[in-house]
Amino acid sequence: MSSNELKQLLEAVRCGGVTVEEAATRVGASGVSDLGYATLDLHRQQRCGFPEVVFGEGKTAEWIEGAVRRLAEAGQDAFVTRVNEHQSAYLSGVFPHAEQDRLARTFLLPSGTRVEPVGLVQVVTAGTGDLPVAQEAMVTARVMGANADLIADVGVAGIHRVLRHRDRLNAADVVIVVAGMDGALPSVVGGLVDCPVIACPTSIGYGAAFGGVAALLTMLNSCSAGVAVVNIDAGFKAGYVAARMVRRMHRA
Amino acid sequence: MSSNELKQLLEAVRCGGVTVEEAATRVGASGVSDLGYATLDLHRQQRCGFPEVVFGEGKTAEWIEGAVRRLAEAGQDAFVTRVNEHQSAYLSGVFPHAEQDRLARTFLLPSGTRVEPVGLVQVVTAGTGDLPVAQEAMVTARVMGANADLIADVGVAGIHRVLRHRDRLNAADVVIVVAGMDGALPSVVGGLVDCPVIACPTSIGYGAAFGGVAALLTMLNSCSAGVAVVNIDAGFKAGYVAARMVRRMHRA
Amino acid sequence: MSSNELKQLLEAVRCGGVTVEEAATRVGASGVSDLGYATLDLHRQQRCGFPEVVFGEGKTAEWIEGAVRRLAEAGQDAFVTRVNEHQSAYLSGVFPHAEQDRLARTFLLPSGTRVEPVGLVQVVTAGTGDLPVAQEAMVTARVMGANADLIADVGVAGIHRVLRHRDRLNAADVVIVVAGMDGALPSVVGGLVDCPVIACPTSIGYGAAFGGVAALLTMLNSCSAGVAVVNIDAGFKAGYVAARMVRRMHRA
Amino acid sequence: MSSNELKQLLEAVRCGGVTVEEAATRVGASGVSDLGYATLDLHRQQRCGFPEVVFGEGKTAEWIEGAVRRLAEAGQDAFVTRVNEHQSAYLSGVFPHAEQDRLARTFLLPSGTRVEPVGLVQVVTAGTGDLPVAQEAMVTARVMGANADLIADVGVAGIHRVLRHRDRLNAADVVIVVAGMDGALPSVVGGLVDCPVIACPTSIGYGAAFGGVAALLTMLNSCSAGVAVVNIDAGFKAGYVAARMVRRMHRA
Amino acid sequence: MSSNELKQLLEAVRCGGVTVEEAATRVGASGVSDLGYATLDLHRQQRCGFPEVVFGEGKTAEWIEGAVRRLAEAGQDAFVTRVNEHQSAYLSGVFPHAEQDRLARTFLLPSGTRVEPVGLVQVVTAGTGDLPVAQEAMVTARVMGANADLIADVGVAGIHRVLRHRDRLNAADVVIVVAGMDGALPSVVGGLVDCPVIACPTSIGYGAAFGGVAALLTMLNSCSAGVAVVNIDAGFKAGYVAARMVRRMHRA
Amino acid sequence: MSSNELKQLLEAVRCGGVTVEEAATRVGASGVSDLGYATLDLHRQQRCGFPEVVFGEGKTAEWIEGAVRRLAEAGQDAFVTRVNEHQSAYLSGVFPHAEQDRLARTFLLPSGTRVEPVGLVQVVTAGTGDLPVAQEAMVTARVMGANADLIADVGVAGIHRVLRHRDRLNAADVVIVVAGMDGALPSVVGGLVDCPVIACPTSIGYGAAFGGVAALLTMLNSCSAGVAVVNIDAGFKAGYVAARMVRRMHRA
Amino acid sequence: MSSNELKQLLEAVRCGGVTVEEAATRVGASGVSDLGYATLDLHRQQRCGFPEVVFGEGKTAEWIEGAVRRLAEAGQDAFVTRVNEHQSAYLSGVFPHAEQDRLARTFLLPSGTRVEPVGLVQVVTAGTGDLPVAQEAMVTARVMGANADLIADVGVAGIHRVLRHRDRLNAADVVIVVAGMDGALPSVVGGLVDCPVIACPTSIGYGAAFGGVAALLTMLNSCSAGVAVVNIDAGFKAGYVAARMVRRMHRA
Amino acid sequence: MSSNELKQLLEAVRCGGVTVEEAATRVGASGVSDLGYATLDLHRQQRCGFPEVVFGEGKTAEWIEGAVRRLAEAGQDAFVTRVNEHQSAYLSGVFPHAEQDRLARTFLLPSGTRVEPVGLVQVVTAGTGDLPVAQEAMVTARVMGANADLIADVGVAGIHRVLRHRDRLNAADVVIVVAGMDGALPSVVGGLVDCPVIACPTSIGYGAAFGGVAALLTMLNSCSAGVAVVNIDAGFKAGYVAARMVRRMHRA
Repeated sequence: MSSNELKQLLEAVRCGGVTVEEAATRVGASGVSDLGYATLDLHRQQRCGFPEVVFGEGKTAEWIEGAVRRLAEAGQDAFVTRVNEHQSAYLSGVFPHAEQDRLARTFLLPSGTRVEPVGLVQVVTAGTGDLPVAQEAMVTARVMGANADLIADVGVAGIHRVLRHRDRLNAADVVIVVAGMDGALPSVVGGLVDCPVIACPTSIGYGAAFGGVAALLTMLNSCSAGVAVVNIDAGFKAGYVAARMVRRMHRA
Repeated sequence: MSSNELKQLLEAVRCGGVTVEEAATRVGASGVSDLGYATLDLHRQQRCGFPEVVFGEGKTAEWIEGAVRRLAEAGQDAFVTRVNEHQSAYLSGVFPHAEQDRLARTFLLPSGTRVEPVGLVQVVTAGTGDLPVAQEAMVTARVMGANADLIADVGVAGIHRVLRHRDRLNAADVVIVVAGMDGALPSVVGGLVDCPVIACPTSIGYGAAFGGVAALLTMLNSCSAGVAVVNIDAGFKAGYVAARMVRRMHRA
Repeated sequence: MSSNELKQLLEAVRCGGVTVEEAATRVGASGVSDLGYATLDLHRQQRCGFPEVVFGEGKTAEWIEGAVRRLAEAGQDAFVTRVNEHQSAYLSGVFPHAEQDRLARTFLLPSGTRVEPVGLVQVVTAGTGDLPVAQEAMVTARVMGANADLIADVGVAGIHRVLRHRDRLNAADVVIVVAGMDGALPSVVGGLVDCPVIACPTSIGYGAAFGGVAALLTMLNSCSAGVAVVNIDAGFKAGYVAARMVRRMHRA
Repeated sequence: MSSNELKQLLEAVRCGGVTVEEAATRVGASGVSDLGYATLDLHRQQRCGFPEVVFGEGKTAEWIEGAVRRLAEAGQDAFVTRVNEHQSAYLSGVFPHAEQDRLARTFLLPSGTRVEPVGLVQVVTAGTGDLPVAQEAMVTARVMGANADLIADVGVAGIHRVLRHRDRLNAADVVIVVAGMDGALPSVVGGLVDCPVIACPTSIGYGAAFGGVAALLTMLNSCSAGVAVVNIDAGFKAGYVAARMVRRMHRA
Repeated sequence: MSSNELKQLLEAVRCGGVTVEEAATRVGASGVSDLGYATLDLHRQQRCGFPEVVFGEGKTAEWIEGAVRRLAEAGQDAFVTRVNEHQSAYLSGVFPHAEQDRLARTFLLPSGTRVEPVGLVQVVTAGTGDLPVAQEAMVTARVMGANADLIADVGVAGIHRVLRHRDRLNAADVVIVVAGMDGALPSVVGGLVDCPVIACPTSIGYGAAFGGVAALLTMLNSCSAGVAVVNIDAGFKAGYVAARMVRRMHRA
Repeated sequence: MSSNELKQLLEAVRCGGVTVEEAATRVGASGVSDLGYATLDLHRQQRCGFPEVVFGEGKTAEWIEGAVRRLAEAGQDAFVTRVNEHQSAYLSGVFPHAEQDRLARTFLLPSGTRVEPVGLVQVVTAGTGDLPVAQEAMVTARVMGANADLIADVGVAGIHRVLRHRDRLNAADVVIVVAGMDGALPSVVGGLVDCPVIACPTSIGYGAAFGGVAALLTMLNSCSAGVAVVNIDAGFKAGYVAARMVRRMHRA
Repeated sequence: MSSNELKQLLEAVRCGGVTVEEAATRVGASGVSDLGYATLDLHRQQRCGFPEVVFGEGKTAEWIEGAVRRLAEAGQDAFVTRVNEHQSAYLSGVFPHAEQDRLARTFLLPSGTRVEPVGLVQVVTAGTGDLPVAQEAMVTARVMGANADLIADVGVAGIHRVLRHRDRLNAADVVIVVAGMDGALPSVVGGLVDCPVIACPTSIGYGAAFGGVAALLTMLNSCSAGVAVVNIDAGFKAGYVAARMVRRMHRA
Repeated sequence: MSSNELKQLLEAVRCGGVTVEEAATRVGASGVSDLGYATLDLHRQQRCGFPEVVFGEGKTAEWIEGAVRRLAEAGQDAFVTRVNEHQSAYLSGVFPHAEQDRLARTFLLPSGTRVEPVGLVQVVTAGTGDLPVAQEAMVTARVMGANADLIADVGVAGIHRVLRHRDRLNAADVVIVVAGMDGALPSVVGGLVDCPVIACPTSIGYGAAFGGVAALLTMLNSCSAGVAVVNIDAGFKAGYVAARMVRRMHRA
């Protein structure tokens, strides 16, 4: 509740337009829905521009169903990430009209009104094995209201592969670079463009890749200053933070 | 060189307007200045929107002087970070008109023309000890052409301290959160705003803080999706990537 | 054996009321039961206020059965944690009247006499995925003789979710905060209450969560001073140490 | 502001006893003091039972002085930890009546009214080298209003050294065990008493002690369930959390 | 495109022998084949002496098939590493004439023309369990055009086992030493020969071998200066880099 | 070949009692048996007092069979560790008279002559879950020619459990302490006895036990000086090194 | 107190030869000397064969002096390790007849009676830089009553250097191998001898040696089974545990 | 001693041309010089192509002097690395004609005869701060008999900087790439050339660079297969192994 809203409410109390009880409730209004196993944050969209997103890992299909239903009832998009095979099948049965992407492992039950997508998030991968994480980033950015596109497998061992896409990279509002192994691609891309670059390490690689740690460290130490980093395999986060940027850039 | 520029050049070769020798030179034109101990990237501004920045650590004062002179000759801003006491004194003598910030440990020899700053980067720190890193972020963002402001010491142990700044946070284009110890503040801020949040861990803390590793991991694992992360104590990077965003948001 | 008990025994030896052999046995009395594969500590209850608890992992169902029987024969509660599906089924067959909680993965064969529960341990989770660990904490605290209650999924990304429970938190004697990912919730809770806070990290999260290490480090570095930490996923330990506190607070 | 306080305030607004402006201010009242470089949390005592404590590391002596003055003006105890030699000398000059402990590296400018200390926090160290951390714990516990006492150098290599103090250990409300190297002592103590045990690892040791990591891991994995852990060398935290427990145990 | 080739092309443009369009295409010629899920680097052979190699892990069998077909169409060897059982069976069906090695887990569809192998890469293993990695190194070196041979299980616990092969080691152009556990063998071999030694750690071992980290660190810290290291279990890399050396040594 | 043996051989050459060819062979005699996939060290017994032991992990059952047959042909004990279920069944079929211990996962095909066991290796475990590793240590010590005995589950949480075995501990020549979790037991035992103590960490524990790393570090940092450490879960090594000691102590 | 001693005491109580008070005191006799800052374990020699050793690091010179005096009064050897320059000078003044070794950084104030040294501990170093740690091991072994000798700088890069000392190695009762960098030497030595080998890693090395971690891991993973390991730079521990072995081997 | 040499010696024994004593000495001839604190390997040049190199760290200036004198007496080059300021000054006094390079921190006392340098080692650095390590590599390669050259500061943030040196890179026999921070340059270089690439990480960088670990991991995980890696800051090793390759490539 902003300072102005509070004053209006208090004025209404003073005038008798609102009872003390109701005002107390409104000041304390939580904007949450308590499901017992989950406390849904129904004001997330208002504060952050997009509803709470459900992280599917470690949840029963029934818990996910409950959260999706509640978001839908509140008229909000219900977006779930890290949906495994079992959850996916269950949710297909319960919500036949939902949109699922099996490469990205996402689920979306859209609310009625869609906004026109804006700007451009350009997703780039270093290798073919990075595709699932890149797809999660692309789907997320689209769901959040941004246009998004993909360039695959242009790692630095053949540096001309990424250089030939310079025009596409320069046309983007944000570039997301998804890379495992040495994680070197974001440093090169960061030196080619003037927009922000989001680097997303993947757990692709073996031995001393340590499940993505090598790529993560490379990206945090990028010699290109315009690079910020998200968690390992966190395509969702890369897409989400990129979409936040794009929407800021293109708001009326 | 873009595809169109290349075709124009080739057309000129065909017409005889440009010799083969000159065209070969132009295609291969490097835009670099070779100082022996350094290879300055003079096209960085053109590609990335800001000239190459000099990282002061591990360099002799003379090497820094050489790079600054060359950038100045090329009519570009010469910005140096991580300037230690000795380097600072030396550079003061050589460039008496340069701007130095001893808390941020930065040096700036501006080129003649300054652009009007745009937008707002809001820097926030969890503790008082995080101030030097925050200052480096703020100075960098300003040098890159963004407005920047600071809120100090509003860590989550007294959660009302950050909540009372909600209006200022919501007025920003980008929020940079600088925190050591538990690094928990970006997760809270990320849930309060709808703009991108850049989290910058600091090495403040002791014992199992491991020189900033604890805060870094907290931030990478933030339960708020709109948070991207930069290296430990990397105020420069936070300011740089934030300024890239702001300039995109406010370009004509 | 306390100093006074020893003197009484020696007095009895002097008087001839106790033979040298018997006194030697009593001084050396071990209070243990040797099962070959296990050495049960039957004096644990006397020293620590609760009988030895059996850790189910890595044991055969028969070994667990043996330990449970021996504790029951000694008139003590037999409490087992980390009971897997196979062990659970086996033990159901052997001890049909025991109490098992499949979410917490615990087994309890209570001795006849139950004490009235005292005080209040308030368990709080940051996410839904933290529920199994929280349940283990809650069941343990109850078995140890404390009242215990649960608030689920109030992580800091929606900070108002935990703030609306301030009254419940302040009514508790001890608060256990269970969190994975960034592990930031205990720092916020620690700044809201004046009772001790036990933080329990979980292995929920992916990538750089490193199986709970990120949350563990966050909690150890909490900027709230009133927070102590237990092992990753160690709901049992959190519940046990909290119950020790509560019983101290409410003893006659 | 509790629910009841809010309703009373709203009632006053309705009755005209309080203006809208003043009510808006009170609802948003932050209880903070903004010093520019620090945001003091003046409600900490009210919420958590003790004023905000100043962490001296990484602060200028002037910043510490400013915070101490502000706390004193607010009628609160001003307690500073990790005070180095330079800061100590400076603060001695400015606050000649303050109490400093050079082994614990603490500074205290007490407010006028002292409460009667309650209960007993028993601090125990494994070695002589652990004394500075133990002293910080003891001083902190006393400042927070608990009685505290020390037993030094009773590590497990001579197990009888700790066993002979069983009576003192059992007389305590909380035991703090401070240990470096193998950090084994808390596991033994945890099996001897029925009160909570706070384990505090120290950075004493060499080679594979890794600055306290070995002791920290030992303590987190203690086979005694009644042990909770604080950060490496964090005597302050051990004392603080112990004092919170003791005050709960002994409140009227 | 080398400097000379560029000048020749420009000369042709000037003379009218080549159109502007075609010249623009040639300058920008990427030498890549875009398959959507992969961007094949068809100039790799020209630049690096051997075609792009396909890393099988994390790819569908269909993706591998597509890449192999494209390389074959371009008249290049199609070499795939880390081929699992399922992929192997699928590829056998599609390319019945390809050569697969199940111990090395490699697949080769050779182009028509084979070069005569040169020099000698001597692969040595410390233990029997290191054989699969050693086989991958040997097969790779052969595919790249070098002769290669294997000595198995001559670890340092029986130092005479490796000493008796001194003549064979001295006959080699490069020695690859494959070792897990303590990874000590390369230090001994490096002190016996005057040719370069490539050390390849394996994940063989248990406990504190940490999946090959112990052997990797041993090798990086080898007291024999002539030792360079590749990633854990990276037999392919060891063979590849060794073959590069051998081909340099034996080129006409 | 010792210095004296060499001189005798050379004397024989000089006298013509041995041909140059044969002498050359003897000097270079390797005492190895080359199986292609393995190079058996047949002089290990002579040098180290016991034949080469076969590590079963990562080997085919056929490779193990081959090594066992060759050792048997050489009249040496064939001892295999880390034998999995499949290998065990296969070897049972091939060598029906061999001795297998399924808890220790060992295989022994003894040569004809057994020596009388000497001395006493006392194995002690902290918990029941440590039994498989302890059994491997005990079986190994016995196979190597030492007497060995076991005390189970006497961890430090009930310190009297180990204290009551002081007489048995003092009767031993070497004590092996096997412990997971906090790994604290060796420090206590090391302070009770005057013989060497071998500490063997196990991977028992969860969360921050990190697969035995916590216990390993505890043991390396033991405050009892008489403790040496072997690898995690390395019961074999503990038994082997203990047996070496015992045989030295009891040799005629 | 052994079982027999206890019965004799009880018998004396029964007969009236000992009063109840005195018997109570004797049973609880701690054998400790409480100095406030230290609790000396005066029974250590009785239990473990050598008096408590003082670890100098992190102690004031006065504390060390106090402990030395108390041990001397008790008629025990006072041995101090890790004595720095300042402590050394101070102790020289106070105890002019003490024996100090500045390379080993040790201090010894011997009690009157020296035992005849027995057996042989052979210390071996891989490099010259390992000498201080090796010296600490050698001095310690001698102080504990063993003969000890040193071979320097025979690392595996020149394998013949250690092979030429085979006779000396085989003459030893225990071999201590001290090595930094790759830590490979113990694996070779372990395969040459039949006595126990104690491996002591040093922090010598740079880069990925990580202060001795690389050598430590190598040694823990030694492919020679007869190797046990002590902490990094822990020459004292290596010497102590070796002397325990030797004294067992040579006791009458 | 090769097999043929041995037979010749034995033949001489048989013929009486060589006495048994002398033959025994020759067979065991160690080719070492024992200085007490060091065991110089005088056959290193014969076996490995270059004399033993002295690592200066952790040695007294006198020890270095002794080793240098002994190598000089044996007519071998005396090369010392990691020479600090103090050692450098001392050695200048003792060996006024030696060649020292203060950037590389090397010392060389050449033997009389120099070989003609062969081939080309091209050293490349990513940044200016990497120069000292690069210089050590270059000096070492030259001392070992290879030509060597340097290209400085061509990191991937300005990718055209390295691309313009493609001709120089392709002219080299071996390329050494020295890089800190993200360590990404070797992956790009490895994809541009067909000769072996040696990657040398440096400790340049801050925060999560972890003293060169980030760059080391990047290099080990390089997506370019032709890259082998040496230790952090190990310019000496990079130069040494590169020179071994070059000398093989160019031997007659």
